[in-house]
Amino acid sequence: MGMIGGGKDAFIGAIHRIAANMDGLIELSCGALSINPDTAMESGKMLFLEEERIYLTYEEMITKEAALPADKRIDFITIVTPNFVHFPPAMMALDHGFHIVIEKPMTFTLDEAKKLKKKVEETGLLLCLTHTYSGYPMVKQARQMVKNGDFGKIRKIMVEYPQGWLSRLSEREGNAQAAWRTDPKKSGKSGSMGDIGTHAAHLAEYISGLKIKKLCADLNIVVEGRALDDDGSVLLKFDNGASGILVASQIAAGEENALRIKVYGEKGGLEWAQQEPNTLLVKWLDQPMQVLRAGANYTDRLSSFATHNCRTPGGHPEGYLEAFGNIYRNFALTLSARLEGKQPTKEMLDFPQVDEGIRGMAFIDTVVASNQSGKKWTEFVE
Amino acid sequence: MGMIGGGKDAFIGAIHRIAANMDGLIELSCGALSINPDTAMESGKMLFLEEERIYLTYEEMITKEAALPADKRIDFITIVTPNFVHFPPAMMALDHGFHIVIEKPMTFTLDEAKKLKKKVEETGLLLCLTHTYSGYPMVKQARQMVKNGDFGKIRKIMVEYPQGWLSRLSEREGNAQAAWRTDPKKSGKSGSMGDIGTHAAHLAEYISGLKIKKLCADLNIVVEGRALDDDGSVLLKFDNGASGILVASQIAAGEENALRIKVYGEKGGLEWAQQEPNTLLVKWLDQPMQVLRAGANYTDRLSSFATHNCRTPGGHPEGYLEAFGNIYRNFALTLSARLEGKQPTKEMLDFPQVDEGIRGMAFIDTVVASNQSGKKWTEFVE
Amino acid sequence: MGMIGGGKDAFIGAIHRIAANMDGLIELSCGALSINPDTAMESGKMLFLEEERIYLTYEEMITKEAALPADKRIDFITIVTPNFVHFPPAMMALDHGFHIVIEKPMTFTLDEAKKLKKKVEETGLLLCLTHTYSGYPMVKQARQMVKNGDFGKIRKIMVEYPQGWLSRLSEREGNAQAAWRTDPKKSGKSGSMGDIGTHAAHLAEYISGLKIKKLCADLNIVVEGRALDDDGSVLLKFDNGASGILVASQIAAGEENALRIKVYGEKGGLEWAQQEPNTLLVKWLDQPMQVLRAGANYTDRLSSFATHNCRTPGGHPEGYLEAFGNIYRNFALTLSARLEGKQPTKEMLDFPQVDEGIRGMAFIDTVVASNQSGKKWTEFVE
Amino acid sequence: MGMIGGGKDAFIGAIHRIAANMDGLIELSCGALSINPDTAMESGKMLFLEEERIYLTYEEMITKEAALPADKRIDFITIVTPNFVHFPPAMMALDHGFHIVIEKPMTFTLDEAKKLKKKVEETGLLLCLTHTYSGYPMVKQARQMVKNGDFGKIRKIMVEYPQGWLSRLSEREGNAQAAWRTDPKKSGKSGSMGDIGTHAAHLAEYISGLKIKKLCADLNIVVEGRALDDDGSVLLKFDNGASGILVASQIAAGEENALRIKVYGEKGGLEWAQQEPNTLLVKWLDQPMQVLRAGANYTDRLSSFATHNCRTPGGHPEGYLEAFGNIYRNFALTLSARLEGKQPTKEMLDFPQVDEGIRGMAFIDTVVASNQSGKKWTEFVE
Repeated sequence: MGMIGGGKDAFIGAIHRIAANMDGLIELSCGALSINPDTAMESGKMLFLEEERIYLTYEEMITKEAALPADKRIDFITIVTPNFVHFPPAMMALDHGFHIVIEKPMTFTLDEAKKLKKKVEETGLLLCLTHTYSGYPMVKQARQMVKNGDFGKIRKIMVEYPQGWLSRLSEREGNAQAAWRTDPKKSGKSGSMGDIGTHAAHLAEYISGLKIKKLCADLNIVVEGRALDDDGSVLLKFDNGASGILVASQIAAGEENALRIKVYGEKGGLEWAQQEPNTLLVKWLDQPMQVLRAGANYTDRLSSFATHNCRTPGGHPEGYLEAFGNIYRNFALTLSARLEGKQPTKEMLDFPQVDEGIRGMAFIDTVVASNQSGKKWTEFVE
Repeated sequence: MGMIGGGKDAFIGAIHRIAANMDGLIELSCGALSINPDTAMESGKMLFLEEERIYLTYEEMITKEAALPADKRIDFITIVTPNFVHFPPAMMALDHGFHIVIEKPMTFTLDEAKKLKKKVEETGLLLCLTHTYSGYPMVKQARQMVKNGDFGKIRKIMVEYPQGWLSRLSEREGNAQAAWRTDPKKSGKSGSMGDIGTHAAHLAEYISGLKIKKLCADLNIVVEGRALDDDGSVLLKFDNGASGILVASQIAAGEENALRIKVYGEKGGLEWAQQEPNTLLVKWLDQPMQVLRAGANYTDRLSSFATHNCRTPGGHPEGYLEAFGNIYRNFALTLSARLEGKQPTKEMLDFPQVDEGIRGMAFIDTVVASNQSGKKWTEFVE
Repeated sequence: MGMIGGGKDAFIGAIHRIAANMDGLIELSCGALSINPDTAMESGKMLFLEEERIYLTYEEMITKEAALPADKRIDFITIVTPNFVHFPPAMMALDHGFHIVIEKPMTFTLDEAKKLKKKVEETGLLLCLTHTYSGYPMVKQARQMVKNGDFGKIRKIMVEYPQGWLSRLSEREGNAQAAWRTDPKKSGKSGSMGDIGTHAAHLAEYISGLKIKKLCADLNIVVEGRALDDDGSVLLKFDNGASGILVASQIAAGEENALRIKVYGEKGGLEWAQQEPNTLLVKWLDQPMQVLRAGANYTDRLSSFATHNCRTPGGHPEGYLEAFGNIYRNFALTLSARLEGKQPTKEMLDFPQVDEGIRGMAFIDTVVASNQSGKKWTEFVE
Repeated sequence: MGMIGGGKDAFIGAIHRIAANMDGLIELSCGALSINPDTAMESGKMLFLEEERIYLTYEEMITKEAALPADKRIDFITIVTPNFVHFPPAMMALDHGFHIVIEKPMTFTLDEAKKLKKKVEETGLLLCLTHTYSGYPMVKQARQMVKNGDFGKIRKIMVEYPQGWLSRLSEREGNAQAAWRTDPKKSGKSGSMGDIGTHAAHLAEYISGLKIKKLCADLNIVVEGRALDDDGSVLLKFDNGASGILVASQIAAGEENALRIKVYGEKGGLEWAQQEPNTLLVKWLDQPMQVLRAGANYTDRLSSFATHNCRTPGGHPEGYLEAFGNIYRNFALTLSARLEGKQPTKEMLDFPQVDEGIRGMAFIDTVVASNQSGKKWTEFVE
């Protein structure tokens, strides 16, 4: 694996490295870790990279790595730069034959996303999108229970993602994370909806197996002086007629990362909260609620998709890094299977790919369009 | 106290009686407990009423009670009939000099509500509206903390009220509660929004001290064959610019009575859930979350409005009946103070009155109008 | 009902009155509410008692009430005085033909308890002991599930009752509750074990249907200057061979009234916590945990003992006062049935009686004896 | 790193490898992974070890690795064999100059433990004992708050560790984990107390900074046919006079890995539960409870020991593997610092070492002796 972005001051780069390391399947071999050459070099050394594989630009890295002999060359490239620097390295990496792992939102614009999809299809390479929350075993359990029809037809979905970290104008107080994420030139046309609303929308579609068909968005710039939405609520209609609500807020003072989803069908419902991720609440119309737990011993009740993504027995909590690791692990297992000419299992293939990236970018576009419209409903168009 | 409605098969009548009994301040002396004469009589006997004060119609009750000598006559009348039978007895009771306690929504139409308000003002009598959830001590604590500015300016309100009990067409399966509540001739122009959305809206306004200024509603009839909405989501804008979301659903299969509210301001936020009502979560932007508890010994941290409405020390849970009892108790204390020519304290006066009833009816009207509109926003007009 | 003790400054007297009032089955008609005549008189007036039935001593009350005509005379007397004044009025009340409700621990000594039992048996009158926590519907559900064998043979019981209110020497700081409860002349030979350990022991025996056979106690006086134990831990052996642990502490700083019990059998276990009393966690050896809820709609899964003791549907929380009310209600229903010559149902008869009082006093004796012994085990002798 | 034990069917070996991998500081270079040569070889290949460094015996591994040049040779050896095979490889590894990481309980007997300590002192090498639960950041926070005197003098400690996985005679049903852990020849003189009671005891001493001085144990063999205790409760006395209770049970049917500790001092208390490890409940005598969270932004309220051991910001849950990883990481950082001639920070040095191993073995000895004694108290002797 080579990494673009993710130098020593970045948040998500370190997360990607831990996730990739975790299962001993992936090795970080090279990086273009920062646009600042000193940072790039220093970060590379801290990560024990060979000096000649610490690159100062992603172009250099892609070109030079592509020129290495097959047994030395990296298999894939991870792109963890700010949103506006996703597309160019992604296209270049694919053009040079590298599979890619890419942070969400996939690109800066929907148009870029579509071009990227075309490139992925042309090259036949893998694109793995790190919608982390779909990597949790109990999220996969939820998805499979819905798919199995355990709850009957889905009727209502409530997903909320409150954070508090942008309650102040932190981008002016030296918070580098806040700075680029609230800058329309770096982040894209939406702030909170692009950053975390896309996670919420993905989670809703992933668990329910439904697609958002139209929506009604109310986006807000709550903190004065900010250029992008830091809060928003959205009414949703899904393709089976179900309705829903999505809230993404980064000014919910006092909240950490409180992603929570509830899905209700004819016969029951489910509830999952990211901050206690090993628990899935399963509610029944006329039976007591059940508490399903990751890694539990009632393996006949747990989907193979859930058990495949657990490393520990019940009661030994896995968390965010393991969920992230599951995405890397499934991507790596799929890649290995392919390299060995085998068919990856359906459990291995269960990681977000380019189509999910398109959905995310279309979500941003639709939400922003709806917010600007005086009409109640705006159609969701990819 | 005399009671109209609430005979032996009704749900809410029994609740009112327990709530009224609880503190030994109120005695049930007469009733017109059912439109069915046998039920009325039988119910009255079960409640140990004197036979001559078991009435078969509310008109009879009001007329005869008004004719009794002052020391025997009831002071007030509780109206717990279905919505379409709120207004006539309420007007008649006021006309005969009786204070009233009335179930929410206050009337069948907004127009009736306005007439009732006029009558209340003319007569100078008390009207107490049983928005139960505002009777909980930790709800009062929340309101006072917002009022004190503990959280700074309020920015975002999320209130949800999912229930599952109308997930099936229970109104056709002999469920009397479901039957009238889903019947537009008895319940009014909205189902779920009238029944529980009004509670959610009241709670949001009560805690925040704000007023809804405009909204965007999506109401749904999820269960086929039903005439009124059994689910809905609403985007909210408040008069200080804060935004919000309100969900009321009676098809959230597996949920009991899961009213929950979150309010966020500049400096922190709060969360309260009706099913664990003695706890108020208080979240701070840069301090650990605090868990405030009803009846706790840190009385300097608890508002007088909270402590006034507790009967037990911390850790001895009070519940729904006590919250209901608080409304009766404050109403009764206010009434007693008045009768004794004293000024009720501000804590006593803290029970929902006719203005809250108007807000509730206007909420129903606005939500229904918004739902029928293709425009995003509909102004909230009283 | 007449009340002995429970004047205006007492804690538990007010609780008893609310509990007795709640269901409209019981009326407070007279009282000897304090040994202080002014307090007695003032308290009686505040409770709207007829002046001639406000008594200054319990002897006066019992004698005069016994002399009243049957239709005016009270049916039973509630004794809510400090422990050392339980026995004399209880004996006198029984001797004059009154049923009694009495606070726990039942008497000051085990010897008194045995005499009281004898008197109850001789008179054929009812003695109701207010072990409040056994009044909760989910505690009754737990008991019935154990009884039904749902968990197989019971193997382990863990019950803990931490409170923090005696963390300081409050008895010297004007806390009247603390003063008598920590005074061996008023409270008895144990402090925390008598006050709350007896509740914990009762709960363990009530739910499990087992009897403590021997125990090993470690009692502590943690706060310097105190005369009785304010903390203790006890190893337990039950009559079926199961083992257990009981902790009662009043110096667990920061705890409110955190009674919690876990019972494990061959096939699963249960957990119940008083501070969230409407929930019963049911854990299975190889199935997901279930969350049983008071008042829930899956009535076939709930014991008749649970449903009989609920007043509200699921999600409308009942609490401590309702649990207390259940004891009064079952006692009153049993009494009514008897007075009407009917057989009370088994659900009505499910309230703590004199035998439970004996167990409690024997528990205190055994725990104190064990604490003084250097031997590991002390037999539990009634 | 080289590994002894931990072949493909083992539970804890895989956990050690993930924990060691996580931070990119440690590389698995060789192993003697099983006493079964085929398993050893196959496991080594699965882990991508060089074939010549897959050893069939630990003696071979230690000898051959010691003979490698310094730049190729491993720095330390991890021992994850069953308890009876801890001591011989540990002594041999130290004798050959390797630092060691070793599973708890440290040895088979207390005598071995003392010899091992002597060897560690003689060689000056590091011994890291994997008491996983002390690796959690909120456990470290708890320890530091106690140390800082936030709670005043500690008065009471309650630690419980219920598991359900030995509720049946699984050791006869092909469960390899159960088989050796319940076999006195492989596990030692105690079952549940050795396996999980030692964790509980360590946690109590680690957080409180106190030492157990005497205890009173009741150990049980609940499942018929088993040779070692599968359940036990212990009364504790600490060296500052505080008392406590420790429960370790593996027959608590339906429990996963429910380690929980409560510590109470003069001014407040704390509660931590392993299954929700990112939360520390902090209870105050006369202030609202606070909920401290790992990774939270109120870094001035969190100890440097807590923040040093977090990888993610608040709300991105870390779990068991990260706690385990913290032990490896601190050990590795200490080792690196030493190798570079630097002084490790106090945060790096905060991992369990040989003295904790001695405490654990002495705990087992004392608990077993107490269980066999008819006396209440048995002195804790190292």
